[in-house]
Amino acid sequence: MPRVPTVQDVPARLLLGSGPSPVPERILKALAHPTVGHLDPAFGALQDDVAALLRATMKTTNKVTFPLSATGSGGMQAMVDTLVAPGDRVVVGVHGAFGGRMADALGRAGADVVKVEAEWGRALSVDALIEACADSSTRALFVVHGETSTGVAQPLDGLAEAVHAHDGLFLVDCVTSLAGHPLDLDAAGVDAAFSGTQKCLNVPPGLAPFTVGDRALGRLQRRSWYFDLQAMVDYWFADGPRAYHHTAPINMIYALHEGLRIVEEEGLAARWDRHARAHEALRAAFSVLGFERFAPDGEQLHSLLAVRVPESIDEAAVRGALLREDGIEVSGGLGPLAGRAWRIGVMGEGARQEPQERLIRAVTRRTNGDEHAAVRALADGWAAA
Amino acid sequence: MPRVPTVQDVPARLLLGSGPSPVPERILKALAHPTVGHLDPAFGALQDDVAALLRATMKTTNKVTFPLSATGSGGMQAMVDTLVAPGDRVVVGVHGAFGGRMADALGRAGADVVKVEAEWGRALSVDALIEACADSSTRALFVVHGETSTGVAQPLDGLAEAVHAHDGLFLVDCVTSLAGHPLDLDAAGVDAAFSGTQKCLNVPPGLAPFTVGDRALGRLQRRSWYFDLQAMVDYWFADGPRAYHHTAPINMIYALHEGLRIVEEEGLAARWDRHARAHEALRAAFSVLGFERFAPDGEQLHSLLAVRVPESIDEAAVRGALLREDGIEVSGGLGPLAGRAWRIGVMGEGARQEPQERLIRAVTRRTNGDEHAAVRALADGWAAA
Repeated sequence: MPRVPTVQDVPARLLLGSGPSPVPERILKALAHPTVGHLDPAFGALQDDVAALLRATMKTTNKVTFPLSATGSGGMQAMVDTLVAPGDRVVVGVHGAFGGRMADALGRAGADVVKVEAEWGRALSVDALIEACADSSTRALFVVHGETSTGVAQPLDGLAEAVHAHDGLFLVDCVTSLAGHPLDLDAAGVDAAFSGTQKCLNVPPGLAPFTVGDRALGRLQRRSWYFDLQAMVDYWFADGPRAYHHTAPINMIYALHEGLRIVEEEGLAARWDRHARAHEALRAAFSVLGFERFAPDGEQLHSLLAVRVPESIDEAAVRGALLREDGIEVSGGLGPLAGRAWRIGVMGEGARQEPQERLIRAVTRRTNGDEHAAVRALADGWAAA
Repeated sequence: MPRVPTVQDVPARLLLGSGPSPVPERILKALAHPTVGHLDPAFGALQDDVAALLRATMKTTNKVTFPLSATGSGGMQAMVDTLVAPGDRVVVGVHGAFGGRMADALGRAGADVVKVEAEWGRALSVDALIEACADSSTRALFVVHGETSTGVAQPLDGLAEAVHAHDGLFLVDCVTSLAGHPLDLDAAGVDAAFSGTQKCLNVPPGLAPFTVGDRALGRLQRRSWYFDLQAMVDYWFADGPRAYHHTAPINMIYALHEGLRIVEEEGLAARWDRHARAHEALRAAFSVLGFERFAPDGEQLHSLLAVRVPESIDEAAVRGALLREDGIEVSGGLGPLAGRAWRIGVMGEGARQEPQERLIRAVTRRTNGDEHAAVRALADGWAAA
């Protein structure tokens, strides 16, 4: 008879894939703090602080900034269900799996989806996006700021103006970029954005940090009961007593609070800088081993390094051995990059020299690479100003 | 300057309200187990076990039995988004807040909602539900098995036959009844049901246990990307490699696994019996204090005791003092019962004599009740066969 598994049988892993990322003990401890009720005033005080810390991390003054009770993809669904009406013309940038996913979700909701595409591994043309927004019936523009499938960061300059010209909404996915790659939502003129907890915040998956500004709040759709943003505003940001909508995921919000405190302690600018250094150091080390980054200089997403695996390497076999034997997770490619790419997380506690060195040593041993040279390239990268 | 709150500032509470319920240390420990990836085979083995344990707890052989990545109310939304098409005639039993919520959600989705109502505090008339299903265009019947707003359990006998006569679906909310009140989903002919983790499973809020049988799987709607049941089947129950849909809430699933193991260890029948005894003992003790149950004999939901607060008592003031000064949470009334009712959880570890005695002693002191008589009634209730 097979032994019944328990949670304790799940082995520890070094999470250097596309997420979840390494969760510090501090956050696990917060996660396991005794549960209280969703209407307990002591929890309410913590909610207020989560909202304040999240505003600082997202660089927004939007009052309505809080974690939705679903994973990052649930944040995408909430954006669709609350900010887009059937028939709305929505321009969607597609340069990877996550732009494609949004186009899919919008299509299911009956939107008139206008795709602007780019090759996987490249940023979208800002000019093409602006041109697509020229149609005065455009109700929204959506782009993925950090494409987790390709490791590309999308420039946002000029996009808000283009879609605001017709009172459309500028909508952004910042799941993988938040707290790891420079992003100022208010400066970029973003009307609503969603993120996830399991990337650069190092919190387990399960919540979708979400922010929405006044322009978007003025046109809320309420066709979903669960993703009814107004009902959530009445719970999170009530002037008087908080109005019960659904039971908030208490312990996950504990964990998010601790994750946001860690970001605050480090300072957002310092954290961005560290991610940039960690990215370049890891890139240099992988380059020594023949793994070259997809994103050209200037288009890279600091928090995710996507590299082309040399043809001589059986990527799935090596990736499997790294996980099972070395306890290190890296991610394979999605869509057209399946079988050709590795996606390596450079996220929060994963964006440090020690875990990266462990990964580089393991990869060199399994691919007969030059361990000494690769580790030195990593160290040199970290030592560079 | 106000001190910044931290999670550690949130005080411990005895959770005897409508949920969340007391979370045992074992479950908090599982929750804080190191996070792994959502495609890690070691996690996959745990997923299989979660599904098996959940089937046993729900008493169903449905393959598609798993936790959705949202709270219990998200399970309701998933039921609406995947099993009901716009224009569908859906009969909805409304005898409390949670039936009303489903009618609201279905209306937003464009269903033709036919309400069958009952007074808050009573079960729905099975005959009235059956009669409402006689219309051959009926595509579904929805009832709440355990009404958390009133403490009433709904008889399900005969309902499946009535709606199956026209190939309609029998849909059930078992959020508060699962693992606390007798329920055999397969015997009742239920086609799909959702639950929550924060009631009789004693797991923190954040997941929606969900089950769906073949009749319902044959007519899946896919208008929601996030609540796309087929995509979740391809992740949870793939014949080959699990297909990535969204990043599963890993640590919450750890906690659910541990909660389901505790149910298995006690045995479902023994657990139901314990909840019934705990309910009657607590009812007897509250009766001594002048708090009488709303539900008549035979209609009570074992896992939630809803009582009428004596007119002489300022319920909100006493409830607030219980929370702030005694560290005990009980819930007030919703809707027409606001200001008149208390809702007391009898859920999992809350369905034991010790926490109940702590509650009874605190209530008697704050209401000048007969502490000795009330505690004796509780003890006598527990001592009864």
